[in-house]
Amino acid sequence: MFVIGERINGMFTEAKKAIEDRNKEPIQDLALRQLAAGADALDVNVGPTRGKPVENMIWLIETIQEVTDAPICVDTPKFDVMSEAVKACTNPAIINSTKASVPELDRYVPLAVETGSQLVALTLDETGVPRDVDGRVMMGATIVTKAMEHGLDMVDLYIDPVILPVNVGPKQPAAVMGAITQLKLISDPAPNFVLGLSNVSQSCKERSLLNRIYLSMCVGVGLNAAIMDAFDKDLMNAAITAEILLEKQLYCDDYIAAYLSSR
Amino acid sequence: MFVIGERINGMFTEAKKAIEDRNKEPIQDLALRQLAAGADALDVNVGPTRGKPVENMIWLIETIQEVTDAPICVDTPKFDVMSEAVKACTNPAIINSTKASVPELDRYVPLAVETGSQLVALTLDETGVPRDVDGRVMMGATIVTKAMEHGLDMVDLYIDPVILPVNVGPKQPAAVMGAITQLKLISDPAPNFVLGLSNVSQSCKERSLLNRIYLSMCVGVGLNAAIMDAFDKDLMNAAITAEILLEKQLYCDDYIAAYLSSR
Repeated sequence: MFVIGERINGMFTEAKKAIEDRNKEPIQDLALRQLAAGADALDVNVGPTRGKPVENMIWLIETIQEVTDAPICVDTPKFDVMSEAVKACTNPAIINSTKASVPELDRYVPLAVETGSQLVALTLDETGVPRDVDGRVMMGATIVTKAMEHGLDMVDLYIDPVILPVNVGPKQPAAVMGAITQLKLISDPAPNFVLGLSNVSQSCKERSLLNRIYLSMCVGVGLNAAIMDAFDKDLMNAAITAEILLEKQLYCDDYIAAYLSSR
Repeated sequence: MFVIGERINGMFTEAKKAIEDRNKEPIQDLALRQLAAGADALDVNVGPTRGKPVENMIWLIETIQEVTDAPICVDTPKFDVMSEAVKACTNPAIINSTKASVPELDRYVPLAVETGSQLVALTLDETGVPRDVDGRVMMGATIVTKAMEHGLDMVDLYIDPVILPVNVGPKQPAAVMGAITQLKLISDPAPNFVLGLSNVSQSCKERSLLNRIYLSMCVGVGLNAAIMDAFDKDLMNAAITAEILLEKQLYCDDYIAAYLSSR
């Protein structure tokens, strides 16, 4: 399970203020605390902050790199911000994200290959998010084809089948699971699968419960990465326990502590 | 999700004493409290109690039937006890269980058909529990074939792919999930799938956590029933939440309360 901590995001008040004030300490604290909680990488998103997105993003990346070598998951929808930001990453970055349309893939996949980055590719295009399994599988196949064409290894590709909130799209959680199941069957070697997990429970009441049960179900069908809240201890315990049950880690009585101390 | 409460079992001290003392109140209390907690049916097992198993079992069934019409899941490995006990059930019973060997199926399936009972069939035979997915799938296919031959509807059949403790058989949880996935693919209509859930965490430290994450993962691949501890509120919440995420129930902010009040 590859855990990408979601908390360095200008959508959150604390991070927004720190970015705008160029105050390193809260950002570095968020980075180190997420890693201590079990995150393997750090998502970085400037969100709706004042100032130029590219400058804010590079400041964030440099600020984080002062305190950790953990992979940075550069989260922006703007290609120009992305292409500048990945160059600021001293370790291999994760490009988050490209859409599944061919023109987008034709510039994002080469960017990943040229910079030695990994790539998150969403199963959505200019028409939006597919409503069903088949639409996601077709876009997933396009992503895999384009990755192979441009020479991106499957180990460096993360397909994100885009989860929508269960209270808005009640069929969507099952459709995402179906897409992961089918895409795993049709590609060998299979790419990785990632989700922006928290979106499943957006505006719902039992957010933490929905997040951790959905994560468990998705890991059961092949999800092996998630952008998620590493500070949610129950969620981290669910992820670690799912790994034990799939024999990705071996059971011992202190398996939770063992997992965290191996990070 | 069909929840079969596991607590009326002579292995537990309270139930054992009540059976041996012919004390109805603790048994009736266990029955009603499990149903209030969300159980749909009640597993009944005399365990290692003194006295004749058939008499203990029939006393238990009659005692429970004084306070509820909920289905009784008659849990005994002895055919003679089973055939007497199902006759004592005033509502359709659940026969728990038969092995997957042909001679066993040839007496248990007709018993289910003749008495209008449902049947739990384990994917194990005189050689024991299969170590892998394939062994379980082959036994599952034998079970389905025998059920069809004797005229038992798939809706009345529960295949139990037999979960072993994760600390003893670390590959077993994934093998059970693989067996459910494949058996669902090869049979149409598919039978039901059930597990004696608590066994996955036998002698483990984080029992409740392992149980609820494993339940979530199994429901994600098609498990639709479990013999489990309905008193474990976190486990019940996991089951209910998994249902929401698979659109078996519709999300509302009070979905947990709505589920329980519909029981």
